[in-house]
Amino acid sequence: MLTREQATAKILAAKQKSKLTWEQIAKGVGRHKIWTTAALLGQHPMSAEESESVVKILGFAEGEAQEVSSALQEFPMRGSLDSAVPVDPTIYRFYELIQVYGPTIKALIHEEFGDGIMSAIDFDMELKRKEDPKGDRVVVTLNGKFLPYKKF
Amino acid sequence: MLTREQATAKILAAKQKSKLTWEQIAKGVGRHKIWTTAALLGQHPMSAEESESVVKILGFAEGEAQEVSSALQEFPMRGSLDSAVPVDPTIYRFYELIQVYGPTIKALIHEEFGDGIMSAIDFDMELKRKEDPKGDRVVVTLNGKFLPYKKF
Amino acid sequence: MLTREQATAKILAAKQKSKLTWEQIAKGVGRHKIWTTAALLGQHPMSAEESESVVKILGFAEGEAQEVSSALQEFPMRGSLDSAVPVDPTIYRFYELIQVYGPTIKALIHEEFGDGIMSAIDFDMELKRKEDPKGDRVVVTLNGKFLPYKKF
Amino acid sequence: MLTREQATAKILAAKQKSKLTWEQIAKGVGRHKIWTTAALLGQHPMSAEESESVVKILGFAEGEAQEVSSALQEFPMRGSLDSAVPVDPTIYRFYELIQVYGPTIKALIHEEFGDGIMSAIDFDMELKRKEDPKGDRVVVTLNGKFLPYKKF
Amino acid sequence: MLTREQATAKILAAKQKSKLTWEQIAKGVGRHKIWTTAALLGQHPMSAEESESVVKILGFAEGEAQEVSSALQEFPMRGSLDSAVPVDPTIYRFYELIQVYGPTIKALIHEEFGDGIMSAIDFDMELKRKEDPKGDRVVVTLNGKFLPYKKF
Amino acid sequence: MLTREQATAKILAAKQKSKLTWEQIAKGVGRHKIWTTAALLGQHPMSAEESESVVKILGFAEGEAQEVSSALQEFPMRGSLDSAVPVDPTIYRFYELIQVYGPTIKALIHEEFGDGIMSAIDFDMELKRKEDPKGDRVVVTLNGKFLPYKKF
Amino acid sequence: MLTREQATAKILAAKQKSKLTWEQIAKGVGRHKIWTTAALLGQHPMSAEESESVVKILGFAEGEAQEVSSALQEFPMRGSLDSAVPVDPTIYRFYELIQVYGPTIKALIHEEFGDGIMSAIDFDMELKRKEDPKGDRVVVTLNGKFLPYKKF
Amino acid sequence: MLTREQATAKILAAKQKSKLTWEQIAKGVGRHKIWTTAALLGQHPMSAEESESVVKILGFAEGEAQEVSSALQEFPMRGSLDSAVPVDPTIYRFYELIQVYGPTIKALIHEEFGDGIMSAIDFDMELKRKEDPKGDRVVVTLNGKFLPYKKF
Amino acid sequence: MLTREQATAKILAAKQKSKLTWEQIAKGVGRHKIWTTAALLGQHPMSAEESESVVKILGFAEGEAQEVSSALQEFPMRGSLDSAVPVDPTIYRFYELIQVYGPTIKALIHEEFGDGIMSAIDFDMELKRKEDPKGDRVVVTLNGKFLPYKKF
Amino acid sequence: MLTREQATAKILAAKQKSKLTWEQIAKGVGRHKIWTTAALLGQHPMSAEESESVVKILGFAEGEAQEVSSALQEFPMRGSLDSAVPVDPTIYRFYELIQVYGPTIKALIHEEFGDGIMSAIDFDMELKRKEDPKGDRVVVTLNGKFLPYKKF
Repeated sequence: MLTREQATAKILAAKQKSKLTWEQIAKGVGRHKIWTTAALLGQHPMSAEESESVVKILGFAEGEAQEVSSALQEFPMRGSLDSAVPVDPTIYRFYELIQVYGPTIKALIHEEFGDGIMSAIDFDMELKRKEDPKGDRVVVTLNGKFLPYKKF
Repeated sequence: MLTREQATAKILAAKQKSKLTWEQIAKGVGRHKIWTTAALLGQHPMSAEESESVVKILGFAEGEAQEVSSALQEFPMRGSLDSAVPVDPTIYRFYELIQVYGPTIKALIHEEFGDGIMSAIDFDMELKRKEDPKGDRVVVTLNGKFLPYKKF
Repeated sequence: MLTREQATAKILAAKQKSKLTWEQIAKGVGRHKIWTTAALLGQHPMSAEESESVVKILGFAEGEAQEVSSALQEFPMRGSLDSAVPVDPTIYRFYELIQVYGPTIKALIHEEFGDGIMSAIDFDMELKRKEDPKGDRVVVTLNGKFLPYKKF
Repeated sequence: MLTREQATAKILAAKQKSKLTWEQIAKGVGRHKIWTTAALLGQHPMSAEESESVVKILGFAEGEAQEVSSALQEFPMRGSLDSAVPVDPTIYRFYELIQVYGPTIKALIHEEFGDGIMSAIDFDMELKRKEDPKGDRVVVTLNGKFLPYKKF
Repeated sequence: MLTREQATAKILAAKQKSKLTWEQIAKGVGRHKIWTTAALLGQHPMSAEESESVVKILGFAEGEAQEVSSALQEFPMRGSLDSAVPVDPTIYRFYELIQVYGPTIKALIHEEFGDGIMSAIDFDMELKRKEDPKGDRVVVTLNGKFLPYKKF
Repeated sequence: MLTREQATAKILAAKQKSKLTWEQIAKGVGRHKIWTTAALLGQHPMSAEESESVVKILGFAEGEAQEVSSALQEFPMRGSLDSAVPVDPTIYRFYELIQVYGPTIKALIHEEFGDGIMSAIDFDMELKRKEDPKGDRVVVTLNGKFLPYKKF
Repeated sequence: MLTREQATAKILAAKQKSKLTWEQIAKGVGRHKIWTTAALLGQHPMSAEESESVVKILGFAEGEAQEVSSALQEFPMRGSLDSAVPVDPTIYRFYELIQVYGPTIKALIHEEFGDGIMSAIDFDMELKRKEDPKGDRVVVTLNGKFLPYKKF
Repeated sequence: MLTREQATAKILAAKQKSKLTWEQIAKGVGRHKIWTTAALLGQHPMSAEESESVVKILGFAEGEAQEVSSALQEFPMRGSLDSAVPVDPTIYRFYELIQVYGPTIKALIHEEFGDGIMSAIDFDMELKRKEDPKGDRVVVTLNGKFLPYKKF
Repeated sequence: MLTREQATAKILAAKQKSKLTWEQIAKGVGRHKIWTTAALLGQHPMSAEESESVVKILGFAEGEAQEVSSALQEFPMRGSLDSAVPVDPTIYRFYELIQVYGPTIKALIHEEFGDGIMSAIDFDMELKRKEDPKGDRVVVTLNGKFLPYKKF
Repeated sequence: MLTREQATAKILAAKQKSKLTWEQIAKGVGRHKIWTTAALLGQHPMSAEESESVVKILGFAEGEAQEVSSALQEFPMRGSLDSAVPVDPTIYRFYELIQVYGPTIKALIHEEFGDGIMSAIDFDMELKRKEDPKGDRVVVTLNGKFLPYKKF
C-alpha cells in the first residue's frame, strides 16, 4: 500500500512528465482546480471515479495506477506545514496576513454575524488573476458558511 | 506617551461606551472598515487627519484625545498573535486553511503567474456577508499584487 | 473598561464570597452549567440579560456591576491554556486522551460519517457523576454536529 | 521483529485490501471498536488471542501473521501526535475543546467530586451517531473513574 | 481575593520572618512535610482547618489571615515550571532522570505489573537523608497505586 | 559498526524471541535490573564482560554477537525522550510529579542539606511492588549523593 | 523524478569532483553568483536553458543530466534552516544582526521612506571582499525595492 | 535606576515630542545614524559624552536627564526580538533572506575567504535610499571583518 | 519581602551609584569575583556575614539593607536565560561553543576519565585577561570534579 | 560523495576497530586533540594533508579512503545538538553553566575589557585532568580573543 506521501510523489513525477497543468487535471477530474490540487497534494480523499480519472489522465501503468488510485481514496491526515510557521515566502505571506489582520477579521465577523466562525469545512475557495496596468493581482476568495456558536 | 497597546485599550473602551460599530468609525475616518479596524487594533499607522477624526468620533476628552491621536500616528510593531499558532477558533480557522491549502495556493500561483508571491503589502481585503438559504456565508477576498521573484 | 481577565477575577472573588456553586449561578442565569461556567471563565459572550442576572446573583455593587456586565457581553479572545500542552493534571488527562485516541476518533468518524469533522461550534457538552461501587465515574458527553467536508 | 509502526502500516494495508471496517474487525476480536482501533493504531497491547484473531481476520499469510501478532502484543510507546498541537482538522477540534472548555471541566469536576481527576487509564469511551433533522451529530462519551487526590 | 501566587508570596515572607522550617509548619498542620510544602507552594488545596492553622502558625494579622486562608482552600491550577524543561539544577536532575531512566521505568512497570501506570494522584512521597561516610545521600521514595489500563 | 539504536532494536527482538524478562537478563549480567535495562535501552556503557554475557544470554549468533557487544561498550549519547515533554502516559506521570512537586523537593533538600543537589550520577534506583488490598503500589526509590554547591 | 534535495546532493558531488567554484558555474550559466548558488542550493527555479547549461558545465552523464535539469526547473519549497534559529556560526551572525539591529532598520526605513518594507522578492544581493590592512572585510549589500503599505 | 527598557520608552516619548528624526539626533551625538538608533533602542552602551548630548538634544529636565544618561551608559543585554522568528513584516523580510540565502552566503564566504565568518562585532552598516524610476530601493550594506577559524 | 529579582535590581542601582566594580565588591565580601557576581545576580545564596558585608559596601540605608540582606540569603531558583538559546552576543558565544565542541568535550572526558561528567556543582571558575600583541584574550577556566557514573 | 554524517560514522567505526584514541589520532595528524576530534566529528574542515593522514592512520581501504578524505575537506554545516537544550548529561552540564554563570561572565568581560565578546572563532581550548585526592578534576580552558564592539 502506498502512503499518501508516496502517492503525492508519484503524482508530481507523472505531472512533470505529462506537462499537464493542475487546471487541466482538474478539468479532467471534473472538480475545481483548488479542490483537485489540494486532494492530489494529500489533503482531501477522492471518490473512486475521481481517483481513477486522475491515474488515467496522468498515464500511470496498470499496477501503479491501482495503487495510486487506492491511496487517493484514503482519508488523509491533513496538514501540510513542516513547522508551525511556514517558511516558503509564497505561503508565509498568508500567515503574515493572519498576524496583521487576524483580530480585525474576528472583530468584523462578530460585528456582522454575531458570535461564531467562518467554517473551514463547509468552505470553498477561488484563486484568480486580475489584470492591472500597475501589475496584475492575485485575488483569493475564501467562502465559508458562518457557523454561529451554539448557546446551551 | 501611550504605547500602542494602551491606545488600543482606550479605543476599545470608548467604542464600547459609544456603541459605534467598526464600520461607522471607518466611515467617519473615510477609510475601508478592514484597514481602519486593523489600524485601531494597532497594526497600521494613521495620518494626523485620520487619527484626529478617530478621537473626535469616539468622543475622547482633550488631553486624552491628543495622546491617543499621537499614538495612532506612530509606526507600530505589527503582529497580533500571542503564540505562533492562534488559539481563538474564529482566527484559527484561517490558520487551518494555510495548513490544508498552503501548498495548493503556492502551486496555483506559480502555475498562473510563474515564480513569485502575492504581496501582503500592496494588498487590500474585503469581508462580506453572502446570503444563503442554507446559512449565510462569510466571503473574504484577499487582493494582492503579484510580485515576480527578481532573477539577477 | 474591564478586560475579560479582570472581569473573571472579580467573578471568582464574588463567587468565593457568596459560596454559590457554578451550578447555582447557571440556574440563576437559565443556561447549562457548562456553558455558563465557560462564559464566566472568559470563553463565551453573554447577552445583556444573562450578564445582568450574573451580577445580580453574585451581589456586585452598582458601579462594578455595570463594568462586569459590560465585559461579559464582549466577544472574548477564546483559548485558555498558558502553554500548548496543559500542565494541570485534571486538564492534562483530556490532552492525553487526544494523544492516545485522536487517530482512533478520526478513523471512526470517517468510517461512520465519511469525510468531515465533529463541530466544536454547533456543540454542547454534559458532565455527570455516575455512581459506581468501585468508585464513582466522571462521564463527559461531547455532542457536536457532523460537518461534512464540502467538495467543490 | 516488526516495530509497532511497521505493524500498523501492514494492518492498514490489509484492512484496505479486505474492505473490512474497524467495527467488523473489532467484532471479530470481541472488543469495543474504540479500544480495538486504538490498539491496531499502536496505542494498546493485545493479548495473544486478540492479536491472533486480528491476523486471521485480516488474512495475513503465515510468516507475516506471526510477526504482526507478536508486535501487537508488545507494550507500545503511546502517543500519536506529530506535534504538540494536532494539525488534522478532525483531531484539532478536540484540542480546541480543551482550549475553550478545559478550565470549565476542571471547575465542574472539582465542584461535583472535590479535588482530583477523571482517570484516562480506568477509562472507556463511546462514539455514536445521533440522528438529527438539522444534521446528524457525533456523540462522544468519555467515561473515566474519578480519582481523588490523596492527601498525606 | 488573593491569587494563589500572591498567597504563596505572603507565606514565603511570613515563613522567612518566623524562621520556621517547612517541617515545623507541617507538624503544626498535622500533615506530611511534602504534602504541606506543596500545598503552600500552590499545588494542593487545603481544608479550612489546615489553612487556618497555617495562618495561625505563621502569625498573620486578622485581615490578611482570612485572605490567605481563603486562597489556600481554592483548587489551584497545578504545575510549577516556567518552561517545559526546568532550569534550576536541583530540579533539573529529576528531569534528567526521566531522560535517562524513563523507558527503563516503563519497561519494568510493565514487566512487573502488566499494562498500566503508577498513579500520580493516589500517590505519596518521602524525602529522607541517609547518612553515608562517603557523603550523605538524598533518598526520595515515590509511592503510587498501580493503575491497570482498562480494556473495553 | 552498529549504532546504539540498532543494537537496542536487535536486543529487543532477541529478548522477545527468548521470552526472557529484564530481570532474568540482569541476573545473568550480574547487575541490578534497572541499571541493566537502562544500559540495554542505550543509556549506559557496559564492560566487555557484561556485554558478552548479554549476547550469550540472548543467544546471538557469532558475527552479530560481536557487533552488538561492541556497540554496548561504546559511551552512548544519553537521553531518551523524543520531545521535551514525554507523551507516553506511564512516563508522563513522572514528568507530572516534577511539575507538581519540583519546587517542594528543592525546598526540602535545601532545608535538610543546605544548598546543593541530589546527584543523578552517583545515583541508584529501585522499583518494587508493594502489595496493598486496595490495589498494589509501585514504589520507586531514588537514591543520590547530596552534592553541596561549592563556594569559591 | 528527483526531489530538490536529491538534485542538490548530486550537484554538490559533481561540483566537488569538477573542482569548479560557484563563481565559475555562475559565469557559465550567465547569472550572478549569488542567484546561481541559491538556485543550485534549492532556493530558486531555473529556466530550461540555465539548468541545461548547469548540467553541461558539471559534466553530468545523459540520463542523470536530464533528471537534474528537470528538478532544477521545478518551483522549490523555499527555506533552508533546520531550526528557527540557525546554528552554523557563519549563518548565525546574520541572525544576530537581526536581533541587534532589527528594530533599528525598521525605524530608519520608516524615517526615510514612510510605512512599508524592503522587498525580499524584487531584491538582489552582492557579496564582496574589501581589502583592509587590519584584516579583509566581507561586504554584503542587500538591495530591495521599497514597498509602501497600501492604505485602503 | 532606570532599566534599559524604561530609558528607551522615555527616549521614544521625548523624540516624538521634539519631532526630531533619528538622523538629527545622531548628528547631534556625532555618531552614525544606525549605531545611534541601535544604542537608543537599547542595543549599545554610550559614552558619558554621547549620552549627555542625547539628553540635551531631547530636552530632558535635569533629574530625568541624569537617570536616562546613566542608563544609556550601562552595558545592555542585547537582543530585541520577542520571539525567535520576528513577526513585524518590515523586520521579517530580513529573516526570510536568511532562510533563502543563508547557505548561499556561507558557501560564497568560504569560497572567497576560506573557513570563517563575517564578524557581527567588528562590524558596521549603512542604510540608504537609491532612487529608481520603477520605485526607489532600500540599500543595506553590511560590512564586517572576516574572521578566519583558528586551527589549533 | 523582596524577591531575588528585586534585590538584584537594587544591587545594580547601588553598584552604579557607588562606582564600585564587581571585583571590589567581591574583595569586600572575601569571595572570588565570579562566585560573588553570580550570587549578586541571583544565582547563589549568601551567608549572613556575606550578605551583610554586601549591603554595607554598597551603602544601603538601614531598612533596605536588611531587606536586601535577607533576600540574598534565600536559596534562589537558579537559571538566568529568558529563552533556551541566549540572544546576547557575549553570552551566545558560549552556547555556540557547546554546539561546536559539545560532543568533542564528551568524547575526550570519556577517553581520559571513563564514563561520567564534569560536575557543575563541585565547580569553580576563573576569568582572566591574557595580554597578546595581536589583541588581548579572554581566558575562562572551568574546573569541576569528575563524577564517575555509578554502576549498580 | 559522502555526507559529513556518513564520513563521521565511518570514522567512528574505524576508530573502534583500530582501538586508537582521539589523542593518538590527533598526534598522527599533528593537531591538538580537541581541534582534531571536533573536525572528525564534523565541525571543522581539514586540509588535504590532514585528512589524508587521518585515513592512513585509521587504515581505510583505497576507495573509501578517498571518499572519506574528500568529505573531511568540505566546509561543514557546524552545530551538533539535536535540540536547543542538550540532553546528554555530560554535555548538559556545560549548558547549565551558561544558565547559572552567563550574565556573570558577561558582566566580568565588560568590567575587564569593556564592551565586546570573547571570540568563538579566534579561539582554542584545552581539556586536562587535574589530580586531586578528593577526586580528580576536569579542567577546561577556553581561550578566545577579545573582540571590542566597533562604534561607528
